Amino acid sequence: MQERKISDNVIRRLPRYLRKLNELQANGVKRVSSFTLAEQLGLTASQIRQDLNYFGGFGLQGYGYNVDALRDEIERILGMKRGYRAILIGVGNIGHALIERFQFNDWGFVLECAFDVEPELVGTVQKGIPVCAAAALPDYLRSNQIDVAVLAVPSTEALKVAEELGRYGVKGIWNFTNVDVQMVAGNAIVENVHFSDSLLAMSYYLSQE
Amino acid sequence: MQERKISDNVIRRLPRYLRKLNELQANGVKRVSSFTLAEQLGLTASQIRQDLNYFGGFGLQGYGYNVDALRDEIERILGMKRGYRAILIGVGNIGHALIERFQFNDWGFVLECAFDVEPELVGTVQKGIPVCAAAALPDYLRSNQIDVAVLAVPSTEALKVAEELGRYGVKGIWNFTNVDVQMVAGNAIVENVHFSDSLLAMSYYLSQE
Repeated sequence: MQERKISDNVIRRLPRYLRKLNELQANGVKRVSSFTLAEQLGLTASQIRQDLNYFGGFGLQGYGYNVDALRDEIERILGMKRGYRAILIGVGNIGHALIERFQFNDWGFVLECAFDVEPELVGTVQKGIPVCAAAALPDYLRSNQIDVAVLAVPSTEALKVAEELGRYGVKGIWNFTNVDVQMVAGNAIVENVHFSDSLLAMSYYLSQE
Repeated sequence: MQERKISDNVIRRLPRYLRKLNELQANGVKRVSSFTLAEQLGLTASQIRQDLNYFGGFGLQGYGYNVDALRDEIERILGMKRGYRAILIGVGNIGHALIERFQFNDWGFVLECAFDVEPELVGTVQKGIPVCAAAALPDYLRSNQIDVAVLAVPSTEALKVAEELGRYGVKGIWNFTNVDVQMVAGNAIVENVHFSDSLLAMSYYLSQE
């Protein structure tokens, strides 16, 4: 299928569609109209139709969207079927929480290994993920084609580690530090996690009460 | 100023504008065009002008936006000057990380107290925040007008705690559990933090390489 250049806004709405479709699927719903989707997502039906038309538009007038097919297609568009190889660097609070509770597999990523400097952590296995010595990271990157690194190190280490990741050709950095690492990360795509964005959206809605 | 009803999409872009404006301000930039903003944010200039026009439009043709004024105005729109009172429930990995590293004050929230069931944690002070016994939560909510609760408890406790928060009139729940708590939370606004949204956006961009 020919895909036009898609705006960042559309891309960032797709995961929301996907979550909703997962929920509908889990509830046994087979098809859904753009109106229902719109209502449940706080968007307009025309916005949803416009977004999904980017990819060829699988909605049928008067029928709505086939939940399973649309879900599969969004997964494909988001590259979720590629089995990206991931590592995690920094098994502190955030790193721990991600290993314990984030379902990398559900989103098409294979978390292979974690790295930390703490001697008590190195050599342990957390939820099936081995924790290796941070010093072994360059060797690991040389021997393995890693797609994505989850960066959860202390801020003071962020630039040094990101530079190393870029140098060894890691393609994406999922950045949980509050340091802007894009400049040192070579060609890697840096995706920053900003907790504040969702808090501020809530702040707005609270202020409207 | 008269404010029209603003779509959720616009609201969710405002924190991104704010982060960029903070960055520009920190770099001593005094004014910025919609074109420059667009380029740096991966949006279109017309999108940005349209978004900011919702609030009265402070851009001047040929001059651009005054960085300080626009930043102040977005802070006002987002309700960031209201000093919302916040508590945090569950000082596990995520809770710890938020206390240690998230700057609630910077975003207009005052984190007053944390709650946990662990005897070793109760009575301690983490980064200036006292950790109280979870059993004391109802009393605390009765005696204090809390606006927002950060929900970082284990999934198994999420519904029970959210129900309690709703019952005591907490206005907003910032939900870090992967449990959908809206149904039990009474009139509270629930804002869910979905780490996967940003990972999937990166997944898309990786798949386009």
